[in-house]
Amino acid sequence: MRTQVGIVGAGPGGLLLAHLLQREGIESIVLETASRAAVEGRVRASVLEYGTARLLVQAGVGARMEREALVQHGIVLRFGGVPHRINFAELVDGRGVVVWGQHEVVKDLIAARLDAGGDIRFDVSDVALADIESKRPSIRFRHGGENHVVECDVIAGCDGFHGISRGAIPGGALQVFERLYPFAWLGIMADAPPPADELVYAHHPSGFALASMRSQRISRLYIQVSPGEDLAYWSDARIWDELDQRLVGPDGGFTLAEGPVLQRGITLLRSFVVEPMRYGRLFLVGDSAHVVPPTGAKGMNLAIADAAVLARGLVALFKTGDTALVDHYSEVCLRRVWAAEHFSWWMTRLLHRGPFDTPFDQRRQLAELDRLVSSPAAAAALAEAYVGRPLEHA
Amino acid sequence: MRTQVGIVGAGPGGLLLAHLLQREGIESIVLETASRAAVEGRVRASVLEYGTARLLVQAGVGARMEREALVQHGIVLRFGGVPHRINFAELVDGRGVVVWGQHEVVKDLIAARLDAGGDIRFDVSDVALADIESKRPSIRFRHGGENHVVECDVIAGCDGFHGISRGAIPGGALQVFERLYPFAWLGIMADAPPPADELVYAHHPSGFALASMRSQRISRLYIQVSPGEDLAYWSDARIWDELDQRLVGPDGGFTLAEGPVLQRGITLLRSFVVEPMRYGRLFLVGDSAHVVPPTGAKGMNLAIADAAVLARGLVALFKTGDTALVDHYSEVCLRRVWAAEHFSWWMTRLLHRGPFDTPFDQRRQLAELDRLVSSPAAAAALAEAYVGRPLEHA
Repeated sequence: MRTQVGIVGAGPGGLLLAHLLQREGIESIVLETASRAAVEGRVRASVLEYGTARLLVQAGVGARMEREALVQHGIVLRFGGVPHRINFAELVDGRGVVVWGQHEVVKDLIAARLDAGGDIRFDVSDVALADIESKRPSIRFRHGGENHVVECDVIAGCDGFHGISRGAIPGGALQVFERLYPFAWLGIMADAPPPADELVYAHHPSGFALASMRSQRISRLYIQVSPGEDLAYWSDARIWDELDQRLVGPDGGFTLAEGPVLQRGITLLRSFVVEPMRYGRLFLVGDSAHVVPPTGAKGMNLAIADAAVLARGLVALFKTGDTALVDHYSEVCLRRVWAAEHFSWWMTRLLHRGPFDTPFDQRRQLAELDRLVSSPAAAAALAEAYVGRPLEHA
Repeated sequence: MRTQVGIVGAGPGGLLLAHLLQREGIESIVLETASRAAVEGRVRASVLEYGTARLLVQAGVGARMEREALVQHGIVLRFGGVPHRINFAELVDGRGVVVWGQHEVVKDLIAARLDAGGDIRFDVSDVALADIESKRPSIRFRHGGENHVVECDVIAGCDGFHGISRGAIPGGALQVFERLYPFAWLGIMADAPPPADELVYAHHPSGFALASMRSQRISRLYIQVSPGEDLAYWSDARIWDELDQRLVGPDGGFTLAEGPVLQRGITLLRSFVVEPMRYGRLFLVGDSAHVVPPTGAKGMNLAIADAAVLARGLVALFKTGDTALVDHYSEVCLRRVWAAEHFSWWMTRLLHRGPFDTPFDQRRQLAELDRLVSSPAAAAALAEAYVGRPLEHA
């Protein structure tokens, strides 16, 4: 087998890359270890920056999102028991964010890929990269009971933090930056309307909580727990009680509607970056190169931005032989990545209670939150980072 | 002896309080353990917020400052070896900060006090407070070889972090918030023109450095060192070499003029707040109630704001018997104090290298600095906090 771009991983980054290349007549093969149903069912990130949503529309894969997704022009910061709204509309020229699950983005990208007759293989196994330093890198994999090799001009490693792509790069060629956080999120998806129209980020003496939504009828709710927490000790009643305390409190303000818990899980929080995001003919895209804690809602946006930058570079490379854009791929992406790493760290530090935090730290957090809701300049800085920089500046 | 307000400490807070009260016909006695020469020679903070400078002018003690002080409309953030200017003029409606040493403020306040025939006693010793919970609190002290007692209506504890006032409050009545930083500042005053017209805050792999000035001819220069550092190991040549590396670097940009070192010292960095700032008839003002690390240049400004709030409250109390303002003294001051505690912590965290910082932390700092110089909203939030909120909102 032969292709121009071998793409490892059918997440939003890999699929968008394949789609953008296809529109320019560049061939690719997408390889994914999971089944199509599993990929389309993976509930992950759900907030698209303004620029990310616009990019999907411009790429012709945003029609369903435009019809069905929730557009939001603010978030609520809840602290000291009181909700405070950050009004994006006033602060960032009417731009907002779009609440639209990663699995929905993926569904439309898979449909577009298949409609266009593109090659995408689910349920592959034993994926391995070879000769990535040469001009003929290749991917070996097993599919339908047979071994295959696909020779490529370049490979895009879009297979996430736990994927095999990053590991194909020799030790020592990458500089690793990492931070683990001393807390985790216990998250549920519930068949209950979300408590507010917008995301509610709550600072509470017991720890952070977040009320998000998959739709107007399905809530996504999170509470900060310790990293070693065991789900077995969390009954539905205990989860709802903790959510109620942190998100509503004694003075009300809104009601937390309970409903059947459809899904539950614990997520560790991590910051991670490797530099550079390229080695030879292998380009790392999205979580294979960088991870952010979910507090800033940046993960999927970064993967999509990487894919857009790489697609532009590869189009130039294949159409004119010009390597300038691909040679700057890593540098261009990393500026956005580090901005998001900072923002995600900052949102996390702002709202969580650390196990070694002192009363000084708690009061300082409250002072920072107070400033965000009382200084238009501070609120604008938050809004601008949350809504995201235009992708043209990527 | 009898007075309305007994003031312990002749720093900017105590002296301004005495001055503002005197203008309203309210009596006070200021007690200071140091000599007048020592108080007037103490080189400490040197940046006045816009509102602080205006308050001094309005109070009739700003004439010399208006003639001689340097007004600055920006600061320089230096990182990655390159200087970036934050232009306050563009960001905060033409407001700037005034570089004017604390000892200069103190000189003018002492002169005003003596001109008006106010009572101020230097070189006192054995100061002790009594009956602060009663309506007749008193201050005992020794002066000119004799013991004295001054009975007061209220006492203002303006004697700094190491003063006796805070300790007169019974254990358990105050909640203490504290943070010590794992680094210190080695500072020199040098007979050499400052390297730039404005303050230069430098982020450097070896640690923070700051170039400030006492005047256009006298530099104040600082480098981050470890808290246990011994000055004996720092020759002038070593200090200049380290300053040059952190503030100028190989690519230049400006020249660091060397000159005789007039003064040197090591300062520990601390954040500290007690709540409330009042106990019975004792009001704590400035550093006796709260300390900030010097990075945000807020210490003297907070002391002056406290004094202004307390003066307003005491005027109402003595003239009309209305206790509302003094009853809110602590609450009103603490909002400004915690905003400054946050800002000072943030500036410190932004620029220093912590002993346990990882490469992730360093890159994150650079991303945050990059954002401050590339996002007008982020720069405006910094400028607004640095220049300070109007004192009317205190």
